[in-house]
Amino acid sequence: MCGIVGYIGKNQAAPILLEGLSKLEYRGYDSAGIAVYNNNELEVAKSKGKLAVLSEKIDGGKKLGGNMGIGHTRWATHGEPSDVNAHPHLSQSGRFAVVHNGIIENYISLKKKLESKGFEFISETDTEVIAHLFEYYYKGDIMDTMIKVINRVEGSYALGVLCVDYPDQFIAVRKASPMIVGLGDEENFIASDVTAILKHTRDIYYLEDNEIVVLKKDSVKVYNTDKEEVKKEKFTVDWDVSAAEKGGYEHFMMKEIEEQPKAIRDTISPRIKDGKIVLDDISLTEEDIKNINKIYIVACGSAYHVGVVGKYVIEKMCRIPVEVQVASEFRYCDPIVGKDDLVIVISQSGETADTKAALEEAKARGARVLSIVNVVGSAIAKASDDVIYTWAGPEIAVATTKAYSTQLTVIYLIAAYMADKLGKISKEEYADFIKEIESLPDKVAEILKSKEDVQYLASKFYNCHSIFFIGRNLDYAVSLEGSLKLKEISYIHSEAYAAGELKHGTISLIEDGTLVVALATGKNLFDKTVSNVKEVKARGAVVMGVTTEEHEHMDDVADYTVKIPATHEMLLPSLTVIPLQLFGYYVASLKGCDIDKPRNLAKSVTVE
Amino acid sequence: MCGIVGYIGKNQAAPILLEGLSKLEYRGYDSAGIAVYNNNELEVAKSKGKLAVLSEKIDGGKKLGGNMGIGHTRWATHGEPSDVNAHPHLSQSGRFAVVHNGIIENYISLKKKLESKGFEFISETDTEVIAHLFEYYYKGDIMDTMIKVINRVEGSYALGVLCVDYPDQFIAVRKASPMIVGLGDEENFIASDVTAILKHTRDIYYLEDNEIVVLKKDSVKVYNTDKEEVKKEKFTVDWDVSAAEKGGYEHFMMKEIEEQPKAIRDTISPRIKDGKIVLDDISLTEEDIKNINKIYIVACGSAYHVGVVGKYVIEKMCRIPVEVQVASEFRYCDPIVGKDDLVIVISQSGETADTKAALEEAKARGARVLSIVNVVGSAIAKASDDVIYTWAGPEIAVATTKAYSTQLTVIYLIAAYMADKLGKISKEEYADFIKEIESLPDKVAEILKSKEDVQYLASKFYNCHSIFFIGRNLDYAVSLEGSLKLKEISYIHSEAYAAGELKHGTISLIEDGTLVVALATGKNLFDKTVSNVKEVKARGAVVMGVTTEEHEHMDDVADYTVKIPATHEMLLPSLTVIPLQLFGYYVASLKGCDIDKPRNLAKSVTVE
Repeated sequence: MCGIVGYIGKNQAAPILLEGLSKLEYRGYDSAGIAVYNNNELEVAKSKGKLAVLSEKIDGGKKLGGNMGIGHTRWATHGEPSDVNAHPHLSQSGRFAVVHNGIIENYISLKKKLESKGFEFISETDTEVIAHLFEYYYKGDIMDTMIKVINRVEGSYALGVLCVDYPDQFIAVRKASPMIVGLGDEENFIASDVTAILKHTRDIYYLEDNEIVVLKKDSVKVYNTDKEEVKKEKFTVDWDVSAAEKGGYEHFMMKEIEEQPKAIRDTISPRIKDGKIVLDDISLTEEDIKNINKIYIVACGSAYHVGVVGKYVIEKMCRIPVEVQVASEFRYCDPIVGKDDLVIVISQSGETADTKAALEEAKARGARVLSIVNVVGSAIAKASDDVIYTWAGPEIAVATTKAYSTQLTVIYLIAAYMADKLGKISKEEYADFIKEIESLPDKVAEILKSKEDVQYLASKFYNCHSIFFIGRNLDYAVSLEGSLKLKEISYIHSEAYAAGELKHGTISLIEDGTLVVALATGKNLFDKTVSNVKEVKARGAVVMGVTTEEHEHMDDVADYTVKIPATHEMLLPSLTVIPLQLFGYYVASLKGCDIDKPRNLAKSVTVE
Repeated sequence: MCGIVGYIGKNQAAPILLEGLSKLEYRGYDSAGIAVYNNNELEVAKSKGKLAVLSEKIDGGKKLGGNMGIGHTRWATHGEPSDVNAHPHLSQSGRFAVVHNGIIENYISLKKKLESKGFEFISETDTEVIAHLFEYYYKGDIMDTMIKVINRVEGSYALGVLCVDYPDQFIAVRKASPMIVGLGDEENFIASDVTAILKHTRDIYYLEDNEIVVLKKDSVKVYNTDKEEVKKEKFTVDWDVSAAEKGGYEHFMMKEIEEQPKAIRDTISPRIKDGKIVLDDISLTEEDIKNINKIYIVACGSAYHVGVVGKYVIEKMCRIPVEVQVASEFRYCDPIVGKDDLVIVISQSGETADTKAALEEAKARGARVLSIVNVVGSAIAKASDDVIYTWAGPEIAVATTKAYSTQLTVIYLIAAYMADKLGKISKEEYADFIKEIESLPDKVAEILKSKEDVQYLASKFYNCHSIFFIGRNLDYAVSLEGSLKLKEISYIHSEAYAAGELKHGTISLIEDGTLVVALATGKNLFDKTVSNVKEVKARGAVVMGVTTEEHEHMDDVADYTVKIPATHEMLLPSLTVIPLQLFGYYVASLKGCDIDKPRNLAKSVTVE
């Protein structure tokens, strides 16, 4: 998604803005630009493509003077990636420069109105409307103008605005898009994300919707839309910056795959005490749990796939009905959800716009919301009744691995915790389940030891055009994630199917040599899935089977077999997914793809 | 799925068997064979490929003498399509010939046992086990042997068996696979389906599980496994044979697409009387409806996609929670379903094995089952508490069109019927909804009038490798069906996505020229989907928009636009699907695919 950095202070702005933007690269972008106030005017530089192109154009920032500026990395929503569509955008006369993250939903009608008033548009973006609106409403007071503009636009935005009449301050605001304020020593910042400014300061303000912030070199003031000053609480970030570096790996993705045993352990261990799951950080009581009518799990992408696992596990262990919904669908389907229901939302960044909107829909209908989030203090975390953090550490690769794995782990903890409170699990089963959860980090590490075996398989299949993943029940849930992992970084069209459903249509795509990855880890459904393997084999498919050490029969039917250690049936997804992550990684690597930043994708999707 | 025909009577068997098998071609198959009793021995002819190959080999059947025989078309499950894997299979000594439809689940252990007794296997099929088992258990009495065999095998089967020691009779049995008995004049039949024998007789017996039938030239006797004769009720078929012919169209599929206005009207009109929906044929009372806790819709393939529409419509109109499940998943997920729940199962053939198994699972857990089925007297219809038939007439093309459309119609009737009983719909809304349902046939006919427009679009895209269908809510439900229609007959890898979910991973597959079919028919979500269209356009996609006459804005953003008439929001799927069916058809036609019998697929999937 788009990234914003703004600076005012004692140093030259442009190099600092470039460096800040580079820390936001992981969010995904396709063009970049900066604007600075210099010699009584606003100067803009922007370029399609990587940040390096822009940096070269302005000699690492040195070519642009001035001590105040705003910068932006753009992920296209309105208009293709290009120099002219890149931000910042100037108003007609050049008086205002604007960077924007989000989507202005009523931009078409605003554009028509402004055109009728003589404004000319040079880009295809919704953002240019904002730049011209500033000019249209401006009567000499930037704060009055900002308030008029945000009253007029509909949608989501984080805005940073420079005005040529204000040489010693700039102004910013956010609504439903992320933005924080950084408080430095004779310098101050805005940014989409803390990582962009961590080098300069660890003291920040979180902004509420429609709080307007005025930044000067040595002061930061926050106002509401009645121009009353708002008292903000300073928050100090205690992250370790080095955790966000690659540390010897070729890609963040492999680093994060390898970090999974630690991430899972970090997520589990503080929550298991004396053989019991302890969720001190949530307010949900035993009484509350007993009164739950239904659980919704709402999320996007890989987090949604965690939800699919969650449905099987929670229904099986707690006998509470669970419905999993894609967040962008949930919001608009008039869901039957109310005060007796628990809505679990899952998001790594905690800023996923679709998920946040779904959360608000659920809250508006009276449901209680429990979120599973990785980023502390993020919008979703703040808007939830309860949060369980995944403590995976910063995840930089766009394709998630350790966030997925830790989210799964939290689902297991929740399921067993609830099953225990509900009396649906015996003491022995509960003890066994916890023992098996605690063994997951070691078992994941064991699988990672033989990752070269998966690399060998990837070398056989990386030129495929279509790949299918099949499995039943929990294996189906994991096949969804395996398929997404492969397709998002390797650009191979893969698709996951419930193994029994393939023959009801999609099997017609199987031809000689088509790769089918068949997951058959569970005991009860192993034979059923093997029957489906035979169906695709009979039609020419090459089959890569993934199963546990307990099942020898897979070697007889599949062309290649990957074995994982055995564990509790419900926990198998945590192990099954590992070879699939590795397979996606190695296939993409062999194809020479940009693994950490696949085309078209953004790490944290902050538009709907 | 596999098809079986058996004959004994006054005429030469082989030509009749070939002709009967040809009527079963629509079920899908990849090899065929027949066995006859002739000159005191069993003679077998079989071939991989189309029936024409076999027919040529034996000169239309003339080369094989004798008045008794069994025939089979095979859809591979165990072992690839080949001459040797084709049925009938002979026992070691040639004493028995067997045709089989279904899957023997314990064939591996049986095979090992038989091999240890000296039996040699020449095929990879599970069926050969049965032939050898007959020989192994045979002590001179075929009935005793049959009982021993069916006691020993696990799984599903319809069996026809010839024995060289019985020149004037053959024997058959079924369990969880379809088979009927045809009663002629000095001739009798078995067949998987009535159509295979309609030319000869309209009098039939339906067989229950494990009823053994002994057929002679002038008698048919049915026994249970205690060798007691069972009194069977004769059933007379009143179908019109001509309805199952192509009638001037190049393919059954186009004929059936064109038949949709009539099929929908046939399904609706007897059920709307004096402005009210009348469902006389079901026993569900108003009281029952008010007590429903939850509705499950369980089905496979396109019928599952009807269920996805059903969830939106029923939840919206009745405010009863609905869960849609793929049948093969439902059966094994330990579903939370019981006596307060209604399970709606949907199947054109009424013989879909996965769906039938799911139905039995639901019944075993105490749920009430309402089925939506096209074939009267089919297994699913018989096993349900209530049935609403879809009166679409015989559907021959493997890719469903009119069955899907009439199933949708029944869902609408059920939703409005329940909403009325529950008091969730005002008199005016109810009247308006019924009026709009009644207008569907004309509106479908109107869309079909401009089918050449869709043909033109197909001509532009039929060489694509990957195609995506996107939409939100009801449009998403239809995009699932549009994608399946295209992929199953054209072999193009297409995939349906909730429009808002694409950006969470799969958008990385969009490159210059990738076709995205965007459905945006509903009023409320039109703008949201247009935003997603812009996202894919910005990444190079070519977009075919499908929308209603009310939305002009689609022309501004999509490269091509297909317009459908406006109707009630909930009913839009019935119209939206039509251009998608046409698109699939024309793309497959331009690619020269075997449209009515796509590779690897079966019409009625009677194995799990």
